[in-house]
Parts: sequence; C-alpha cells; structure tokens
Amino acid sequence: MTDTLPAGSVIGILGGGQLGRMLSVAAARLGYRTHIYEPMANPPAADVAHAVTTAPYEDLAALEAFAKSVAIVTYEFENIPTSALDALEAHCPIHPNRRALSISQDRLIEKSFLRDLGLMTAPYAAVDDAADLAEAVEEIGTPSILKTRRLGYDGKGQERLKSPDDAEAALAAMKDAPAILEGFVEFSHEVSVIAARSLTGEVAAFDPGENVHVGGILSTTTVPARLTEAQRTDAVLLAAKILNALKYVGVMGVELFVTKKGLIVNEIAPRVHNSGHWTQNGCAVDQFEQHIRAIAGWPLGDGSRHSDVVMENLIGDDIARIPAIAREKHTAIHLYGKAEARAGRKMGHVNRVTPR
Amino acid sequence: MTDTLPAGSVIGILGGGQLGRMLSVAAARLGYRTHIYEPMANPPAADVAHAVTTAPYEDLAALEAFAKSVAIVTYEFENIPTSALDALEAHCPIHPNRRALSISQDRLIEKSFLRDLGLMTAPYAAVDDAADLAEAVEEIGTPSILKTRRLGYDGKGQERLKSPDDAEAALAAMKDAPAILEGFVEFSHEVSVIAARSLTGEVAAFDPGENVHVGGILSTTTVPARLTEAQRTDAVLLAAKILNALKYVGVMGVELFVTKKGLIVNEIAPRVHNSGHWTQNGCAVDQFEQHIRAIAGWPLGDGSRHSDVVMENLIGDDIARIPAIAREKHTAIHLYGKAEARAGRKMGHVNRVTPR
Repeated sequence: MTDTLPAGSVIGILGGGQLGRMLSVAAARLGYRTHIYEPMANPPAADVAHAVTTAPYEDLAALEAFAKSVAIVTYEFENIPTSALDALEAHCPIHPNRRALSISQDRLIEKSFLRDLGLMTAPYAAVDDAADLAEAVEEIGTPSILKTRRLGYDGKGQERLKSPDDAEAALAAMKDAPAILEGFVEFSHEVSVIAARSLTGEVAAFDPGENVHVGGILSTTTVPARLTEAQRTDAVLLAAKILNALKYVGVMGVELFVTKKGLIVNEIAPRVHNSGHWTQNGCAVDQFEQHIRAIAGWPLGDGSRHSDVVMENLIGDDIARIPAIAREKHTAIHLYGKAEARAGRKMGHVNRVTPR
Repeated sequence: MTDTLPAGSVIGILGGGQLGRMLSVAAARLGYRTHIYEPMANPPAADVAHAVTTAPYEDLAALEAFAKSVAIVTYEFENIPTSALDALEAHCPIHPNRRALSISQDRLIEKSFLRDLGLMTAPYAAVDDAADLAEAVEEIGTPSILKTRRLGYDGKGQERLKSPDDAEAALAAMKDAPAILEGFVEFSHEVSVIAARSLTGEVAAFDPGENVHVGGILSTTTVPARLTEAQRTDAVLLAAKILNALKYVGVMGVELFVTKKGLIVNEIAPRVHNSGHWTQNGCAVDQFEQHIRAIAGWPLGDGSRHSDVVMENLIGDDIARIPAIAREKHTAIHLYGKAEARAGRKMGHVNRVTPR
C-alpha cells in the first residue's frame, strides 16, 4: 500500500445522488472524507459528506476550486461534460480514467470497443438520418431499438421499432441527436458483473447478479443468478478483459444477456451500479468500498458472498411500503433521503438476505 | 408507524465521536438527517453529518439553537451536564430518557437501581471520605476497586486495592470526588447484551457477545459468547427488565459477569455500545440502526445473527496494521477518521465474519 491515499484525505465525487451518497459512507469507513460536486441543491449525498459544492458543470471556477480541495476525483455517473473533466484533470487525477468515460458515454463507440475486444454485442448500426435508419432497418430488421448515442439512462432516449413502419416516429423522437439502431437479442435473462480493478492491476469480481427490469428501470437483482459454472466463469473473465483493456481503476458494472449463443454484452457503466447494491448485505466488502479501495490505492477487498440476496428497488410510491417492509425479517433498508417520491424516481432499495 | 418521525427529519446527536458517526450513517440509511453537537472541532461524526455545531455544553444559546433545529435529540455518551439537558428538553424530546441518563451517570445510583430490580451486582459501598473507605474495606474486603461515582470510562477514575494498605493512595487518586468501593467478582468471562426498546414498548436484543478487555479498554467481542441456553435467556430477560423499568427508548449496552452464582450486572450504558459493533456485519439490522428505529418510532428491526463474528478494536498504533488487515478474507474494516493515533485512542475496529 505504498501509493495509498493518506488517511484523512478528501475524495472528490462528481454527482450527489444515491450512488455518491453510498460512496461517501464507504469512503468514511476507510478513513477518508468526501467533497460532493453537484449542480442540484441538497442532493442525497450531502447528508453524509464532509463538504458539498453546489454548482453546474459549466462553472469552471467552481470546478477548479473543487479540484484543488481534493486529492483525487471520482464520479457516480458517466455523463460528465469533457470541458469539466479538462478543468479537473489539470489539478488532480480522475478515476476511473477518461477513456472509460468516453467509451461509455457513447453507445456506438462502446459497442465498437467491445467488438474489438472480441466480445459479442447486439447487432448495431449508426443512425444519423433517415437514410441511415432505412439502411439499418434493412440490415438489422425489426423488432429493434433506436437509442440516442449519448445521455440515455433508465430507458430514456429509447424507441422501440416493432416494424419498419415505426422508423419515422422513432427517428423524430431522437430530436436530431446521433443515434444507434440495436437489433433485438433473444435472451433468457440478464445478469450483471460488478468488477473492480486496483491501481496495481489486481482484478476482482462479485458474484454475478440476475436483473429484472420493469419499464426500463431495474426492479430486482438476485444472487445467485441462474448461470452454469462455465457461464459464471465466462462472465467474470469477460468483465476482467474489459477492465484490463481500459487500464481501468475502480468498480465497473457490466450488463450481460444470457443467450443460447453465449453471453452478449448489453452495456458497461464506469461506476458503481444499481445491480451491485446487494453486496452491501451479502459481502464483507461491498461495491462502494471496493471502488474506494481501488481508487485510493488499497488492495481490493474480499467480495466473496456470504448470503443469498434479493435486492429490490423502491421506485416512486414504493416508498409508501416502508412501514410494512420495516417489519420484515432478514431485510435491510437503504433509503436515499429524497424529499419527493416522483414516478420512476429511485427512492431507496432493500436487500432481503438468506444466509447460504 | 403512526408516531414515526417523518422522512427527512433532523435527528440531533450529542457527541461527535465514532458512535455518533455510526449513528449518523444509520440515520441516513433510514432517510433522516443528523445534526451533531460536539465541543471539539472536526469530530469523527462531522464527516458523515448533515450539520455540525461546535460549542461547549455550557453554551446554552448554542444548545437552544441546536434543539430548535432538530426534531429529537439523542446522545452517544452519558456524561452530559444536567443544565444542557434542561436547555434541550425545553424544545424537543430526548431519547433515551433522563432517568436512564441520571442512573448511568452515577455508579452508586446505578447499583442501587439494579439491586432494587432484584438483579445481582458486585458488593458495593459509598465512599465519601477515609472513614467510609475504612468501613467499606472492612465490609467488602480486598481485592476491591475504588471508582469515582461519576465520569469514569475505559478504566479511568479507577484504583485497585490489593490490600487495605492501598486504601489511602486510592482515596487520594479520587481527588475528593464521591466514590464507590466495589468488591471483586470472581467471574469466568464477561458478556454484554445490546438491547433495544421501541416507543411502543417492544423489546429486542441482539445475541450476547463475549468481551475481552486489555488495560481497561475493550479489545474484542466474540459472538456467539460462551453461554448455556439458560444463561443466554437470563441475559436477555435481565436486559429487558432494565429497559422496561426505565420505560427506556433506544439501544442500551448491559455488561454482565458470568459467575457460578449466575449473571452479575457490571454496568449499563444508555447508548449504542462498543461491544455491539459486531452487529454491523453479523445482522441485517445493526445496533446503530436499531437505536435510530427506536427513537424515530419505527418498529424494531430484525437483529437475528446470520454469521459468527469477532470484533477487534484498533487502538492507538493498531491502525498501522491496516495494510495487512486490508488483505484479510472475510474482514470488514471500520475506521473513525481520527487524525492522530494516540495511545489508548479507539481508531477503528474490524469485524471478522464467519457465516454460520
């Protein structure tokens, strides 16, 4: 641990949502302080942070002051403007690195990176205009999904094409943003691997979890996932290949479709991931601590799973179920301190634990 | 949950040490914010709190402003001046209640309260002067321990009498503070029960832990403790009796000596307790969350133990062992963010977990 961040150092976190909140708690547990940078006032992470800057990502002076107040910078979401990264990186290191960010910020670049690594993805084609889309539909067929290349999450910026007739409306919904048409993948279920790579190149992965989405938003993650031993090994090796190729430092979420042809990479997220929340109550070291360990130069922690866990997201009005959930056995509650329960808003999650 | 503290409410915590720090994280997990009141600057809890007031307990204006900014007040240590409690209680409720505090603040009152409940304690006698001490030594004998009635912790304010000859020096060490002579108890080991009582009078206890002290400071807690089923039941019932007698709300630590004659109460602490830190990695709901649940009007959580755990305190220079501990399997690290590793100072703890 020669290059370990000294105890008491301040870690800067871009983004003050629930992921930043849980990263902040993990950083504290390892003896660090956090400084949250977030455009919106009173973000969830502010409740458990040492310092908070409320400023937009376009405020280069605020970014510079922030960067000077911290030892390293990390982030809880991938859509950080390049200009903001430039301003920060002039003063301190950013983990995970910018290559990982730039790849995950653009679905087209991401898919081509994965293909270059020899990994399987859904069939895809770039779509900048109606002619591209017509050609892509010809090649990939329907059903397929038109997605913006950038800034999509939780099913936003996505339009489904049931038949070629849907092409025009789908393209209009992209509002001239560069897009990508993705072919439909016949998969039996989705799993994800939460993997980490340390400053010294050590790689570790948590047991893959099985994800169920409802309305484009993650609903539950279950460990163990339904996978053969061979699939489990494939999933972990594939994640390691991605991390090593990027000389990645930190935790990454890798979403995979389980198909008859093998594991197909859906997308990668260069950060802690909702499908890794189960680790908080299933392992001695959770994904948030693993991320802090990686970026702070610690050895990776023991993420072996001591229990079976079902993680359930509490979305919007689900929060009203808390009084009943609070009486459940073997259930750990994690709320995010958000004032207003809007539809589709992640308000918290619960981990239901069964010792193995 | 009709009297439940609304989500987003601010919980005031007196004391910003590691207990306040871990209480603050638990409060956030349940959707609350915390405001720490602490005389010393930059306390451990400040790293994970919504707000911090730095002021002495004699500053009644600061106390009043603090009380007005929070919905309820709790505390991480028992030696809070009565005048401070008066100032706070004029504005908001304090949990656990003042009777519990006043009893635990004075070893003589505590022992007499426990005896009145029909529980066993060490033999004891009040000592205000040399005549009292001579009489007490006559009655109780040696070896015995002279302790200040108030403000002792971690072995401070205690003098051992190996023979009656030690009486004069021991009394001088009390510096005229009212004291109590406690007879020596022949015990095989010490256990503690971390128990909780809710606003509605529901009581729950974690599995008793077995404690080993070194130099008067807790070194390790091991669960399961060496106890027969009957002793385990006795320990939990005894703790429940204390909580109910005090109409207590919150978590209490009850230290017990295991002797041939049965369980003898050593002392009670009206707060979360170092010997309950194992619950963080051994249960779905830990002692910190249990305390917040109790004082916030939630039902008590499921504190059943899913794993065997050995908690080890990291004291003073023990912190230098972190690089080695960080590589251990099945080990969860909890550091307190204290800058300076002074001898006898609790810097953190680790929980070594073995699934049952």
